[in-house]
Amino acid sequence: MKASKFYISTLREAPSEAVIASHKLMLRAGITRKLGNGLYTYLPLGVRSLYKLENIIREELDASGALEFKSTVIVPGEIWKESGRWETMGPQMLKAKNRAEQDMVVSPTAEEAYTAIVRDALDSYKQLPVNLYQINTKYRDEIRPRYGVMRGREFIMMDAYTMNADDASLDESYNEYEKAYFRIFKRLGLKIIPVKADSGAMGGSGSEEFMVESPIGDDTLIICPNEKCGYAANVEKAECALDESVNIKGEKPAATDKMPEMVETPNVFSIEDMEKFFNESPKMFIKCLIYRVINSSLDFSDVEAAKNWKRVKDPAGDYYPVSYACVCIRSDLDVNEAKLAATLKASEVVLAEDEEIVEYAQAGHGFVGPMTSKCPLIVDYSVVKDGQARMHDAITGAGKNGYHVKHVEPLRDFTPYINADVRTVKEGDKCACCGSEFYTRKGNELGHIFKLGHKYTKSMHVTFLGQNGKPTEPTMGCYGIGVDRTLASIIEKNNDEKGIIWPMSVAPFQVCIVPIKYDGAMKEEADKIYEELRKAGIEVLLDDRNERPGVKFADMELIGIPLRITVGDKNLPNVEFKPRAAQEAELVPASEAAAKAEEFVKAELAKLKA
Amino acid sequence: MKASKFYISTLREAPSEAVIASHKLMLRAGITRKLGNGLYTYLPLGVRSLYKLENIIREELDASGALEFKSTVIVPGEIWKESGRWETMGPQMLKAKNRAEQDMVVSPTAEEAYTAIVRDALDSYKQLPVNLYQINTKYRDEIRPRYGVMRGREFIMMDAYTMNADDASLDESYNEYEKAYFRIFKRLGLKIIPVKADSGAMGGSGSEEFMVESPIGDDTLIICPNEKCGYAANVEKAECALDESVNIKGEKPAATDKMPEMVETPNVFSIEDMEKFFNESPKMFIKCLIYRVINSSLDFSDVEAAKNWKRVKDPAGDYYPVSYACVCIRSDLDVNEAKLAATLKASEVVLAEDEEIVEYAQAGHGFVGPMTSKCPLIVDYSVVKDGQARMHDAITGAGKNGYHVKHVEPLRDFTPYINADVRTVKEGDKCACCGSEFYTRKGNELGHIFKLGHKYTKSMHVTFLGQNGKPTEPTMGCYGIGVDRTLASIIEKNNDEKGIIWPMSVAPFQVCIVPIKYDGAMKEEADKIYEELRKAGIEVLLDDRNERPGVKFADMELIGIPLRITVGDKNLPNVEFKPRAAQEAELVPASEAAAKAEEFVKAELAKLKA
Repeated sequence: MKASKFYISTLREAPSEAVIASHKLMLRAGITRKLGNGLYTYLPLGVRSLYKLENIIREELDASGALEFKSTVIVPGEIWKESGRWETMGPQMLKAKNRAEQDMVVSPTAEEAYTAIVRDALDSYKQLPVNLYQINTKYRDEIRPRYGVMRGREFIMMDAYTMNADDASLDESYNEYEKAYFRIFKRLGLKIIPVKADSGAMGGSGSEEFMVESPIGDDTLIICPNEKCGYAANVEKAECALDESVNIKGEKPAATDKMPEMVETPNVFSIEDMEKFFNESPKMFIKCLIYRVINSSLDFSDVEAAKNWKRVKDPAGDYYPVSYACVCIRSDLDVNEAKLAATLKASEVVLAEDEEIVEYAQAGHGFVGPMTSKCPLIVDYSVVKDGQARMHDAITGAGKNGYHVKHVEPLRDFTPYINADVRTVKEGDKCACCGSEFYTRKGNELGHIFKLGHKYTKSMHVTFLGQNGKPTEPTMGCYGIGVDRTLASIIEKNNDEKGIIWPMSVAPFQVCIVPIKYDGAMKEEADKIYEELRKAGIEVLLDDRNERPGVKFADMELIGIPLRITVGDKNLPNVEFKPRAAQEAELVPASEAAAKAEEFVKAELAKLKA
Repeated sequence: MKASKFYISTLREAPSEAVIASHKLMLRAGITRKLGNGLYTYLPLGVRSLYKLENIIREELDASGALEFKSTVIVPGEIWKESGRWETMGPQMLKAKNRAEQDMVVSPTAEEAYTAIVRDALDSYKQLPVNLYQINTKYRDEIRPRYGVMRGREFIMMDAYTMNADDASLDESYNEYEKAYFRIFKRLGLKIIPVKADSGAMGGSGSEEFMVESPIGDDTLIICPNEKCGYAANVEKAECALDESVNIKGEKPAATDKMPEMVETPNVFSIEDMEKFFNESPKMFIKCLIYRVINSSLDFSDVEAAKNWKRVKDPAGDYYPVSYACVCIRSDLDVNEAKLAATLKASEVVLAEDEEIVEYAQAGHGFVGPMTSKCPLIVDYSVVKDGQARMHDAITGAGKNGYHVKHVEPLRDFTPYINADVRTVKEGDKCACCGSEFYTRKGNELGHIFKLGHKYTKSMHVTFLGQNGKPTEPTMGCYGIGVDRTLASIIEKNNDEKGIIWPMSVAPFQVCIVPIKYDGAMKEEADKIYEELRKAGIEVLLDDRNERPGVKFADMELIGIPLRITVGDKNLPNVEFKPRAAQEAELVPASEAAAKAEEFVKAELAKLKA
């Protein structure tokens, strides 16, 4: 391709709304243009990289045995009503009425469409698994689109779905996708952190997110530095090694025979107040917090206080719209509300208001105690685990304003309703697998694999005749990669002050040739190298524009082509050979430039595929 | 690909709503599945052909110098308001409100998006032309979607746009697209009829439709059988050679000196009545029809009757919401209303109602005459052309109920307000270029190239600095191919009672291997041929399913794979070699089968590319 025939549309400055590197560079290099809020058009330069990325996804998924299909972008609202998500997807789903006043949906995802299509032709177990993917347009009406295509409204998603006869088959499909994802991100030159995600809200069991470290990430990741271990998790699900409760002298406290004793503690409200008042380590205090619990599907019928809680009958499982729980945790630790909600099978948990606390704890915040709380005790592993108390002779709230209680022995003095891990794992906590100290990073999710289970096959009434001749409900998995977001992440990770530094696998062009002036011997030599590279199947851009060399260099560096061959009078019969990522150029004979460039391209591609 | 790993989902019967071959076969073969009214999902078999078709379009457009871009499917309503089409597109445009209550549009086409994007970066004539295409999802809320993807609501369109500095540059772009289209349809094995279309409503000048003959086509085509001539036109624009007016004796009538003479003609209403009453050929009668004309932008200020017509001021050009015209045409011919509307620069013409006729012709239908009509006379070329009367001594209505008038001489007795070609060209009319007799066919439009002119650059305020340093408004062209409809048309043209007969270029697989039983020597031989073909880069499907041979044959024929190699015990060491389109199979040594198949595939592809 000659630059004069291409649509190069670079900007010296990015619009001020672009604050992250990839957004700025995508606009400056002419990869995308904004058409509306959260709506980005790809210019020809962008399409080249985008399609390369899509094809890498295709190649790896095809190799894994998945088959490509293509749903419509606009789908009938009807199938969303069948699955129940017409109501639950909320305002991020863009809805329209067609001319017959029928509800239509601009697909935010395609579980319903996939399920409806496969359902129609499904008879027998012999047809399973059905493993289909697509790379297609999606739309989510993000409340605050930002960072360019990193969080746009319209986006391209690889979305895949499997329908499986049983859990073993689903596991197989799930594992194949996991492997394919690693190969895909490897070829894109992205260092991926696979994390076990909280899958509570989606209602399945088993899910993994493929994250990249990113300061603008929405997620906090807990990462083990030990590469052999490789543990990484979303903070909403991360676990860690339990440490011992130790007193202010650094000793492990012994169990006490003394019975709990009320202590008057006026003006002692916070943990810091307690440390001063008792002259003791916070690792000796049990912090108790009352939570309001939304939509728990646990059965609290054995709880006295629950007699006043309304329970709603629901075919998908009865639930309490509002209930309460008291969480007991060692006071130097924080409660992780996502873990707590998952433990309580709730959609959400919120710290209770003062009035609610008084109702269930008989005292205000700061004086809540496990022995006097009227709602179910959720006791963290820092306090009790495996039927063993992990704290002794502890101090906690007395359930009476202005009083604490000491000599508390968990299990002797109170019994957990549920004993679970609800702590927030932090930097410095230790890996349960290898003991290394965790560090944390912000992460951005690029991909996701997820065991859906029977959610859609149940609600949309899908069955097949099993090997036993009986109608059986298949199980499902879903798998996604955000295509534009992945492209942006590659740029986010590969740039310098001059512009993008594309990995070879998704570079819009693999090589550029810049003649200082496209004239005379320089033109002749540039054309020769250009033709040789084209014949070798290398994607080459020849900058034949009538621009100053400085403009051409700046554009090629901004655009980020991995290798530049500069043809200048003063160097001939040598030419300059400069990988975009290298600091220095080297001189090579013009006659060898094409062969050397081809070798460079192939070596870079091989590195990414290795 | 092995059939057991592929998603083969064939149906014995098509749903009854499918009435045309391509719709039936796309459903039966498992190419598409219906998701909703006018909404079709592509299954893996369909995706393979669809993407091949898309890539053929890509290759030819890339070769022609066009560059691929990608707009969003959802676009802000705002840009449609800018262009003025927010109002004029009507209910076929699917609109939605986003969460901020902003108007959004599901793109039915992308002139606005393209114009907005290019506008932002356009400064100088040096940047022109900008020649971009995309292959992307579109949606039009068809009132009655039918024939499967032939007339769906969501569809895939190749839509291209050029912005050009001047008409000469636009002509060049237009011609490049025309050439590329011929190459594309050639490679798809489609016989295309390029027709000059009526471009009235779109407001441009210069347009061509690429049609295929089809009994379900929406358009009527007038075609010259002389291949050297190649004239073909939409009936809405077709012209023909003028024939002579002759009297009942077959003689060309001479001009008469006699003055017009009223004849009482009670009960003579129709042309047949006149033939009997006057014992004369209808080629001697002038038929006069009063039309109501909608939104004409002509200036009728010199017409007396127009004093009562309301004229509306409009920046795009003043117009009459309602006006009237009297059409005079030889009575054996029909008026073509599309041609008439174009002549009158109107959006529509409708035959006037009785009351209106009486108002403007002073008599009822059947007695309308050119000398007594009060509205502008639109005289067809059959009556007058180039200032010469083409009828003499004619008979026409007297403008008085129950009377006709004879000895009428056009130009002497009445003067055209406009003299134009408004006749409907029919089968048997003669080609103006070569004199051959036309035939007519129904046609389906697959592609369109169109000179838009300044419509969008004017309304959306696009300018560039011309070579003369002055701000200049660029001109535009747009170019489209209906991708799904083209795929369906290929099937429509290539099928038999057993199923599809794919042309090699878009076949989902090029070769299939069917072992009578996938076992023993047959398995061994089938596997060997399969591996050889895979190594040669041939797309091969090995039917390894545990099905009866009849089922496998039927599926492969239905799916339409161009070549079948059957491996059966009784023929070994030979195998059966059967092109899908051939009547008979031939036996070839198994050891030569792969090489012969490769040769066949390449020869078929070469034929289409030639």
